[in-house]
Amino acid sequence: MKIFNHIQIILVEPSLPANIGSAARAMKTMGLSHLRLVSPKQPIDEQARSLAAGAKEVLDNAQTYATFDDAIADCQLVIGTSARLRHLQNTLVEPRDCGELVINRVSVGKVAIVFGRERVGLTNEELLKCQYHLNFPTNPDYGSLNLAMAVQLASYEIRMAYLQKTAEKQPLVEAKEYPTAEALEHFFAHTERLYKKLGFIRNEAVMLKLRRLYQRAELETNEVNLLRGMLTAVEKAN
Amino acid sequence: MKIFNHIQIILVEPSLPANIGSAARAMKTMGLSHLRLVSPKQPIDEQARSLAAGAKEVLDNAQTYATFDDAIADCQLVIGTSARLRHLQNTLVEPRDCGELVINRVSVGKVAIVFGRERVGLTNEELLKCQYHLNFPTNPDYGSLNLAMAVQLASYEIRMAYLQKTAEKQPLVEAKEYPTAEALEHFFAHTERLYKKLGFIRNEAVMLKLRRLYQRAELETNEVNLLRGMLTAVEKAN
Repeated sequence: MKIFNHIQIILVEPSLPANIGSAARAMKTMGLSHLRLVSPKQPIDEQARSLAAGAKEVLDNAQTYATFDDAIADCQLVIGTSARLRHLQNTLVEPRDCGELVINRVSVGKVAIVFGRERVGLTNEELLKCQYHLNFPTNPDYGSLNLAMAVQLASYEIRMAYLQKTAEKQPLVEAKEYPTAEALEHFFAHTERLYKKLGFIRNEAVMLKLRRLYQRAELETNEVNLLRGMLTAVEKAN
Repeated sequence: MKIFNHIQIILVEPSLPANIGSAARAMKTMGLSHLRLVSPKQPIDEQARSLAAGAKEVLDNAQTYATFDDAIADCQLVIGTSARLRHLQNTLVEPRDCGELVINRVSVGKVAIVFGRERVGLTNEELLKCQYHLNFPTNPDYGSLNLAMAVQLASYEIRMAYLQKTAEKQPLVEAKEYPTAEALEHFFAHTERLYKKLGFIRNEAVMLKLRRLYQRAELETNEVNLLRGMLTAVEKAN
């Protein structure tokens, strides 16, 4: 299952090493092995290693990043876990859709599923950098999923989607190319620079709307190139 | 969700109180609350209560039974977790089927999902008393699901089956406003006019690509207005 190597599970600033260990085990039971950590509050300790059980090499191979941006930079699809926020309603997916999304996209590039901090989740700024937002259909009276449990559910649905897809023998490869998160950020930054200069952008709302639109569209590489070409054409004319 | 009261999660001779606590939390996040314990090796302790977090009343209300038979006595459907054993092949179900089975049957009587001991699972004698056998589609190279994780996955699929069945699921999409085909054409014509003037559009390919992108995105009215505003800003600057 080589495609599983393209799936990155990212934990942002986890507080408890125990959760990192349990998440590693959860991943491996479903065939995933690439774990990335963004500034963990404490280093991986003995309890984490003990809870990882037979998945110690997932912990040993975990990559640590200083920032969220660094951790997602080489990924072409970024899915962030989130509460059911109103302004995200267009990009919310449940774990089952998430599994399908991941399996459909993983043959063309790296995919990240990003889990936020135990108590406060992902920041709004981080959520804006995710194309989709994974929401677990929890009990409205008590929705507090443990971090490693959330990793288990997401990993399970990825595995289910994979098993279903391979059973159907549908081709896993879509012949499209997608930009990395970094390339997408360059496009947004270019847009913002130009339209500020033109006096059109005077507050944050415009870029928020554009991000929402273009992330929903899942821009392809050739489309990003086209849109950047249009920005350059405007710059040249000025 | 009264029918959830008919669903019993049964842990047979769990060794670790921590697993009981985590299982309670896992259950409650998915709306389940009836926990039965068969001869736990150790009583519920402080760690179990701490791991149960907001699901302490699931622990407090847990019923303890001396034997497996006692614990399932009043249930009309009993599903036991099991490895993929050859002699069980006719009764094996995956978590998703299990969720549907439970929801289909729960309106007529009590249903039990029985989880075995951490290391050795259920005995053959116990498995024989289950009508169905729940098997998790784990990694063939490492299938060692933690007990509470297994409870989480089974509870999640029960909740998913329930939500699907009742279509209680809130629609993810709220009323949005979409442009008429005419308004969309005005936007495309505006774009084409401007970028031809800027010398960027010299053939049909660009507009075809932009149409494909924006139609896939299902542009909303406020987004069309924003994009037209950007075109106008460029015109004014020239």
